[in-house]
Amino acid sequence: MKDRIKRIFSQFGKGAPDAIFINYGGVRDYSFFHVTGLEGGSFEGSSAILSKEGSCAILIPQLEENTAVKENKRNKLGLEINVFKSGKEHLEMLRHELLGTKMLGINYSSMSVATNLRLKSEIKCKFMDAGNALREARLIKDEIEIAKIEEAVKIAETGFSKMISEGTIKLGITEREIAAELSYQMQKMGGTNSFPAIIAFGKNAAEPHYATGGAKLKRNQIVLIDWGAKTRRYCSDLTRTFIFGKMNGEQQKMIETVKGAQEAGFDLMKEGCDAASIHSAVKNYIDKTEFKGKFIHSTGHSLGLEVHDGKGLGIEKFPLKENMVMTVEPGVYVKGVGGVRIEDDMIVKKGGIEILSKRNNFLEI
Amino acid sequence: MKDRIKRIFSQFGKGAPDAIFINYGGVRDYSFFHVTGLEGGSFEGSSAILSKEGSCAILIPQLEENTAVKENKRNKLGLEINVFKSGKEHLEMLRHELLGTKMLGINYSSMSVATNLRLKSEIKCKFMDAGNALREARLIKDEIEIAKIEEAVKIAETGFSKMISEGTIKLGITEREIAAELSYQMQKMGGTNSFPAIIAFGKNAAEPHYATGGAKLKRNQIVLIDWGAKTRRYCSDLTRTFIFGKMNGEQQKMIETVKGAQEAGFDLMKEGCDAASIHSAVKNYIDKTEFKGKFIHSTGHSLGLEVHDGKGLGIEKFPLKENMVMTVEPGVYVKGVGGVRIEDDMIVKKGGIEILSKRNNFLEI
Repeated sequence: MKDRIKRIFSQFGKGAPDAIFINYGGVRDYSFFHVTGLEGGSFEGSSAILSKEGSCAILIPQLEENTAVKENKRNKLGLEINVFKSGKEHLEMLRHELLGTKMLGINYSSMSVATNLRLKSEIKCKFMDAGNALREARLIKDEIEIAKIEEAVKIAETGFSKMISEGTIKLGITEREIAAELSYQMQKMGGTNSFPAIIAFGKNAAEPHYATGGAKLKRNQIVLIDWGAKTRRYCSDLTRTFIFGKMNGEQQKMIETVKGAQEAGFDLMKEGCDAASIHSAVKNYIDKTEFKGKFIHSTGHSLGLEVHDGKGLGIEKFPLKENMVMTVEPGVYVKGVGGVRIEDDMIVKKGGIEILSKRNNFLEI
Repeated sequence: MKDRIKRIFSQFGKGAPDAIFINYGGVRDYSFFHVTGLEGGSFEGSSAILSKEGSCAILIPQLEENTAVKENKRNKLGLEINVFKSGKEHLEMLRHELLGTKMLGINYSSMSVATNLRLKSEIKCKFMDAGNALREARLIKDEIEIAKIEEAVKIAETGFSKMISEGTIKLGITEREIAAELSYQMQKMGGTNSFPAIIAFGKNAAEPHYATGGAKLKRNQIVLIDWGAKTRRYCSDLTRTFIFGKMNGEQQKMIETVKGAQEAGFDLMKEGCDAASIHSAVKNYIDKTEFKGKFIHSTGHSLGLEVHDGKGLGIEKFPLKENMVMTVEPGVYVKGVGGVRIEDDMIVKKGGIEILSKRNNFLEI
């Protein structure tokens, strides 16, 4: 984990703090798993202290001890493990770890006001925001992280294929039954849902964040499936849209528009390219069709320990960098008719992108 | 939702703020769903402004509009819905809603330092912590909330029974396959996992927060299953432990100890009883047996929109009140041997408790 920690400190340039404190407490700061590499356990109420030299000390409650010790050894994480049995012990350990620290970095974006106030009263040093450094460092994935995301993509895709090949998509099945089958297939392979899957039939697909319900599948309806797997704490996120039966003219136009918009995004993406320009290109593509104004969300987002992992492909300008992992997911949504969204996961490379998902976009079933 | 909002303001006594701002943003403040009653959608980046009179205005991104409008009408939520299309519009709406507000309550426990700093620069008024008021108000469940939790308990229990009756628990099955079957059964009934289920065989059960893995079931092993359902945003949380085959003497002693400890907790629980005294009673019960020191976590926790919803049955002293919903989940954990935990969900009543779960603790299968 040394390289990850050094990359975090390198984000500050000359003004780096002496140490960084990451709290996985009342508010979950997933950076805890980035710097520790821990995969199992719950680690509620745990925290990590990072040094400029790349070391990581963790303070954990007793009931996480077995998991931490086992993984630290097995995966050579190099963690210094401190187990506390009370709030008093926790504070003593924290003070000990921070001896000599004059400036402590904390994550303004993932630390609550309450924790911040308590920390200020307990630890006598200056504080600065390390949120941006943590976010920027997490945006770039290393080999181990990419392998975990690839595994999460594979579980999502294999689960989806199995669900389809077992004949799940049939007349009268409910949205919720499809969600159950999909999740079942992924769980058997060691994945959980990275978020509650969105399964939307027909008009329901016009809501990008539709809550999967009890609607029954009818012939010639749109089926939109937005789902992902989480494995070893890393996420995938995919969307497929197809027709149960025969596609009509409008459905076909919607699908072709979204596919074209996604390709327009892919064509531009590579290291150095501005994120906002990708979103503009995708949006402009759709706005030049009859579906003008029907694309009502961002083009995509970074993927990692969280499904929305740091930054989005939206209106925010920032240069794409090698080994950022992003989703690209344009859609069009027509109230009373339905919606189409297609989403794939990819790694940004120097000269372009590597698409992690197989993009097996069959259109009718 | 008027009653819920008034109950929040009533927590302050005389020093109540003029309005309360709840942000379901970078950090998720689930109080947003307590005060809105919304069940579907994602509502990322949404917020709510509460008035002393009990009104609730929400600021939501465009892609949540359909869900909000539909549920507001169907469930008579009485929300004032404001849809923003940009950060600028969001700020204008927020300023408009807060016109005349001199003191604004915010949730110190669920608002990040970054959001707090931004809010202070954007809104010219004084701020105070409403975190405690929100937590206290959320601890007491109203009829609608209890009905949702009951539904979540029923889904978890029915899913579990179906999983058992279909012969899932058999020689060689993996922990992860059981998790998949259980989740599948719950999802078909409209529930998702309220957290990733813990399925632990044999020695693995000695870790309270074990991460379900690929271990294969052997004869006469302990099977510990800690799972829950989430439906309409409310959670259940249960644990069952049994033996696959014939129980041995040590397993039997562990199970009897934990059952006795749970009963010791039940016997004391009623309105007015101190939460810490429940934990003491349960811990003392175990510490008087040969498993002294082997109960290494809290006795339980409040249950609601979150699995850990506000407060725990641990060392913190506070009086139990009518319509608090709690888990009681003692356990003993013996390294190298295994662990037993039994967990049920209950409502605190004036003279005792109402146990929501059926407690069908079969011991051998």
